Amino acid sequence: MNKAVSAALAALAIAIPGAPLLAETASQEPRQVILIIGDGMDEQQVTIARNYLKGAQGELLLDSMPVRGASQILTIEDRVNGKPIYVADSANTATSLATGVVTSRGRLATTAGGDEDIPTIIEIAEAAGYRTGIVSTASVTDATPASFAAHVSQRFCENPDQIERVEFSGIHIGGCPQDMQKNGGPGAISQQLAESDVDVILGGGSKHFTPKAEGSQLSVADLARSNGFNVVETADALSKAPTGERLLGLFSESTMPVRMQGEDGRASEQPAPSLLNHVHQYLGDVTLPESMECQPNPEFASVPTLKQMTDAALTHLAADNNKGFFLTIESASIDKQSHERKPCGSIGEVEQLDEALASALAFAEQHPNTLVLVTADHSQAAQLIPHPSLFAAYPIPTYSPGYVSLIETPEGGVMMVNYATTNFMMEEHTGAAVPLYANAEGQGLVPPYLRQPEIFDIMKNYLGL
Amino acid sequence: MNKAVSAALAALAIAIPGAPLLAETASQEPRQVILIIGDGMDEQQVTIARNYLKGAQGELLLDSMPVRGASQILTIEDRVNGKPIYVADSANTATSLATGVVTSRGRLATTAGGDEDIPTIIEIAEAAGYRTGIVSTASVTDATPASFAAHVSQRFCENPDQIERVEFSGIHIGGCPQDMQKNGGPGAISQQLAESDVDVILGGGSKHFTPKAEGSQLSVADLARSNGFNVVETADALSKAPTGERLLGLFSESTMPVRMQGEDGRASEQPAPSLLNHVHQYLGDVTLPESMECQPNPEFASVPTLKQMTDAALTHLAADNNKGFFLTIESASIDKQSHERKPCGSIGEVEQLDEALASALAFAEQHPNTLVLVTADHSQAAQLIPHPSLFAAYPIPTYSPGYVSLIETPEGGVMMVNYATTNFMMEEHTGAAVPLYANAEGQGLVPPYLRQPEIFDIMKNYLGL
Repeated sequence: MNKAVSAALAALAIAIPGAPLLAETASQEPRQVILIIGDGMDEQQVTIARNYLKGAQGELLLDSMPVRGASQILTIEDRVNGKPIYVADSANTATSLATGVVTSRGRLATTAGGDEDIPTIIEIAEAAGYRTGIVSTASVTDATPASFAAHVSQRFCENPDQIERVEFSGIHIGGCPQDMQKNGGPGAISQQLAESDVDVILGGGSKHFTPKAEGSQLSVADLARSNGFNVVETADALSKAPTGERLLGLFSESTMPVRMQGEDGRASEQPAPSLLNHVHQYLGDVTLPESMECQPNPEFASVPTLKQMTDAALTHLAADNNKGFFLTIESASIDKQSHERKPCGSIGEVEQLDEALASALAFAEQHPNTLVLVTADHSQAAQLIPHPSLFAAYPIPTYSPGYVSLIETPEGGVMMVNYATTNFMMEEHTGAAVPLYANAEGQGLVPPYLRQPEIFDIMKNYLGL
Repeated sequence: MNKAVSAALAALAIAIPGAPLLAETASQEPRQVILIIGDGMDEQQVTIARNYLKGAQGELLLDSMPVRGASQILTIEDRVNGKPIYVADSANTATSLATGVVTSRGRLATTAGGDEDIPTIIEIAEAAGYRTGIVSTASVTDATPASFAAHVSQRFCENPDQIERVEFSGIHIGGCPQDMQKNGGPGAISQQLAESDVDVILGGGSKHFTPKAEGSQLSVADLARSNGFNVVETADALSKAPTGERLLGLFSESTMPVRMQGEDGRASEQPAPSLLNHVHQYLGDVTLPESMECQPNPEFASVPTLKQMTDAALTHLAADNNKGFFLTIESASIDKQSHERKPCGSIGEVEQLDEALASALAFAEQHPNTLVLVTADHSQAAQLIPHPSLFAAYPIPTYSPGYVSLIETPEGGVMMVNYATTNFMMEEHTGAAVPLYANAEGQGLVPPYLRQPEIFDIMKNYLGL
């Protein structure tokens, strides 16, 4: 843990005289919080996935959760008392969840403008004797998982080679020199994770653990080993990892492969109006992309599923533990596939989340005092649009100005999914409030409407922190 | 009431032997259901309105509702056992709410393919002795309000002049010859309302009451008068209308004017890329529409507000009534303004809904046994997208391929709202599940997730029907 956070934690303990003493809860029954995050899993994504996976009249496991609310997403300009920005990214939203503090886009557990490190729920829980875990289908250094245990001013500073200057396609897009250890900072994200006290970290991103650690001859992975992590790289090794050791699982170089894809890997495509339609929009016709089914992604077989990682994390965190734990689980590529305009990819990752939820709920059935929360960090671009059009009675061609997919559902319908927030190679996020679900433990704790940072308070209070 | 519906109601009474006898509840305390529909009021619309009206950290009255769920929208092809269509219109969705039956797009309280009339909650409640009311900011003949008390195969058959053949801009877009009275049907929508037993009908659409009624020398408005309606046309006349008379208020020719508009009535506009950007998307720059505030729409002063209509309806329905009532209230132009790409218009109509809700909740405070439900009928096109872009670090112009508005919020931020479902003059609906809210009476009745037609069952059961 870095010094700034240690100091902040100490201050926190003093600042809350009315809070239960940590020692008071230590001897009680173990308590757990499992926070499941569907990255970009807004109401459009949930509906698209439900229609495909269960049919329009069907139900996801998500839908059976007894408590439901909406979470308003907040972010601000990157300065002290910055004005609101109405659409967030995964860095600031994970910071809201992990710390209860609204920050600016791109930041991980640091304050907007002030750049101060903010203690996370994982650091606070650890200090109180809880075990902690992070599971994600992204790189574990990606914004959502990393915000729970790392502090940087810029999300792209994922490893020691990237901390000083980050480039993308030759374009300089940022850097975190002030976060380097030589400058008194906590270092790059992967190095912070390797030096952290987190008990279980599972996901992708091995490439961020191969560079040399800052100020060391060791790779970041070796630094993690020297810090007590058992580092595993396959589903088989994961299943055999002994409990009682801290566990770092890195199952792919970067983001883990997704479960589903369009036929032959197809993404959404632009409707193609005929020549005559370019003359006048009431003339000619338009060719839509051919409809397709979703298919298994062959690469997916090489990695553990989100459910397998969840099961492993639960086993390791619960073994011989009379205090309890905090675990966050992210299905990351609902968002990433939506950025790439790949609806089948997103659908498969909602399915992965629903399966991980089944594990969490089964655990909660066996272990009282387990609060299971499911939410999204922000809304995304995909929209389910009409096919045929609402205006099909008009004898003119109508079509989306963006990218669309026509997906054949198993029940025999055809869904049209639209991506049209930007002309850029990646879709933008959107700003709608997102769903928040809880198991019965959340009754009376999770209100029908809240602001995203309040989820941090609910979790912290539940653990008596 | 038409013969088909009378027969269906009779059948219904026989078909449910376990249901409480209507007479049993008549002597109890009055019971009320108030169903408030925000047309197209999905999570994006609610968030956009909240950010503008209350600030990103603020709360609408809606947000304070103690019960919250999500409602999955359903529609099917226009044939018996038709396959699912994944995006609905306001006719089939209002039919789901009013009758509990999933039908095809364009239909009002008639079955897909079979074209049979389906009894509505208003007809069933009337038959049981309840008073009934319909309030809308649309024409009262528009799909959402009309589905509660009229039965046609095609939503555009709003008046006797339109029932045989409907044209729009010279294009034949439908007709309901089989619904004409001369063919054994119940007639055009306005004529059905004029001949209905509904106690209070308030909204726009006077132009649909000026044609001659089918088979009569009377205008539809005069037919309504002869059927016992007090017909009023101004807010003043509305406020003075004596209770004890049935009331038909028609306050504008068609849709009622909305409360707010963009500066100088501006709608969203297309971003204008520079010439160089047409050469390559990484070159040149883009001009976005100028940002603007929302302004009062001067025409709005000429009509009663949704709250005034709601207050009047509640007064008339509750006066000397020991049985209770069913009232549906629609804020229609959240949807209509979104079709026209006018975010300020939609924001003002969410505000109107929130004010009408205040009246409904105040009534419920004074009158126990009042279930207040708020929901949307379907999702809409508008998306809150990032400004600045998430990709602002890249030195290339990025912009929506659709239409956007930049709205200056009172708290000093700027929201970018995107409309990009279609190149057509009107945006499409979208398919996401929509919010469902209830007052405390809904606890235990309104689950966290349901299919839209189940809302009909909740209302029917609450009234003991």
